Amino acid sequence: MTEFVGIGARRPGSERYELSARLAELIGEFNRNLIDFVADIIPAVKPQVAFYEQLGQPGIDCLEQTMRLAREKGLLVIADAKRGDIGSTAQAYAAAWLGGESAADALTVNPYLGTDGMEPFLAACRKFNKGLFVLVRTSNPSAAELQDLEVEGEPLYARVARLVAKWGNDPDLIGACGFSSIGAVVGATWPTEARLIRAVLPRTFFLIPGYGAQGGAAADCAAGFTSENYGALVNASRSLIAAWRNASRYAAGADYAAATRTAALRMRDELRAAAL
Amino acid sequence: MTEFVGIGARRPGSERYELSARLAELIGEFNRNLIDFVADIIPAVKPQVAFYEQLGQPGIDCLEQTMRLAREKGLLVIADAKRGDIGSTAQAYAAAWLGGESAADALTVNPYLGTDGMEPFLAACRKFNKGLFVLVRTSNPSAAELQDLEVEGEPLYARVARLVAKWGNDPDLIGACGFSSIGAVVGATWPTEARLIRAVLPRTFFLIPGYGAQGGAAADCAAGFTSENYGALVNASRSLIAAWRNASRYAAGADYAAATRTAALRMRDELRAAAL
Repeated sequence: MTEFVGIGARRPGSERYELSARLAELIGEFNRNLIDFVADIIPAVKPQVAFYEQLGQPGIDCLEQTMRLAREKGLLVIADAKRGDIGSTAQAYAAAWLGGESAADALTVNPYLGTDGMEPFLAACRKFNKGLFVLVRTSNPSAAELQDLEVEGEPLYARVARLVAKWGNDPDLIGACGFSSIGAVVGATWPTEARLIRAVLPRTFFLIPGYGAQGGAAADCAAGFTSENYGALVNASRSLIAAWRNASRYAAGADYAAATRTAALRMRDELRAAAL
Repeated sequence: MTEFVGIGARRPGSERYELSARLAELIGEFNRNLIDFVADIIPAVKPQVAFYEQLGQPGIDCLEQTMRLAREKGLLVIADAKRGDIGSTAQAYAAAWLGGESAADALTVNPYLGTDGMEPFLAACRKFNKGLFVLVRTSNPSAAELQDLEVEGEPLYARVARLVAKWGNDPDLIGACGFSSIGAVVGATWPTEARLIRAVLPRTFFLIPGYGAQGGAAADCAAGFTSENYGALVNASRSLIAAWRNASRYAAGADYAAATRTAALRMRDELRAAAL
């Protein structure tokens, strides 16, 4: 971890700041190449805010540039920041990520603080025509620890799903196809849970992380689709952006982007087959 | 919300960026004056990261300067960012906020993702001698919605408290007085719950928000103290930084800092009396 400046680090000119600035530049170039190579075959990008935050200000700058570029290319931009707070603080996060000047179309949020923590985010979605993806059942092994605890005859994540239904059930947030702008994060690694959550949320967009590197297969993802086989955004991170690692040779130059395109096409085909 | 640039906004030179930069400058000056006026009577500051994030890069710069200044004045710096994620992403947040170059001494984190989401933060605490405050029972009205649900005969927050005990029970994280670097956030507005959590966590630092503007009184805070009447850090935000609003006249110049000092002294006296 020590190679990054983080938040509150030394000022421009220090060795670590300059290293982080250089890293942020390279990541920005990498992102630009990837977006150029896949923008025609993917619907959205989901930058992990943490990876930019750890580079301090140069990282935030790189994130902003990447989000703007993705948006210019017609992609939906989901800021994966997993924010969550109360009152005026939640309002400030909503302003940061969903406000009129933000390049994000949607934000991931954590539900642990309950409805009054969510309201400022919902208000921002109404005002700026943005969306949320609320963590319901995450893709990690320890997700079960709290999210699966039984409360009044159902797992906690089902209770959270009911809250998501309530938060999203607002005419100002529901679009032409009957889906709400308030979506749910449902890990690809848990198909049984995904089916249960889909039963609670028939007209909610699911953001499905965990495809690829985390072990989720296309058929697992399909467990989260609607009965008409849509309504889900399947996310792959490492299996796409680091696809060059699995290529027959470690590619130079922009070839890593070609490897990502090949992996993205395969992912698309697998998901289409699973949705048949 | 529209007056702020947020993340991903227009570049330096745009009207909103310059407005946010100017606001960030003024907030930095305000913070410097407040810290100067209270550093001798308070132990710690807890900047709300959201308020800086909503100003985009100038806000992050202001936050960094404020954290560094507080640290130079000998104050503990608790970055109230309520971060939470899994695997490599959690590692990146830990690097951002607890890494060797960060000016924060501790970070607030959200437990909803479970143990594997917490491990990178715990590793950073061990490596860099930093601390965490895990959200257990928050101060807001809707906290009960999920946190109070009964799971296997106890409220969910008690289960989270047991996890905090487990996460903090590590010789590398326990100091000379037997307290762990892994603390718990326990709202001042819920004294009954605080007593229950203290029974689960006898040697854990509590971060107690909600004193003052949110309605928590000194006696409510004392419900979270240990049997020896310590082990808690009571936080006041608006009732201190906006103390000038309650002064007999709207003070000009640095007088707002004097109003904050008066309020901080009163808070200290009230807490001391409650701890008798």
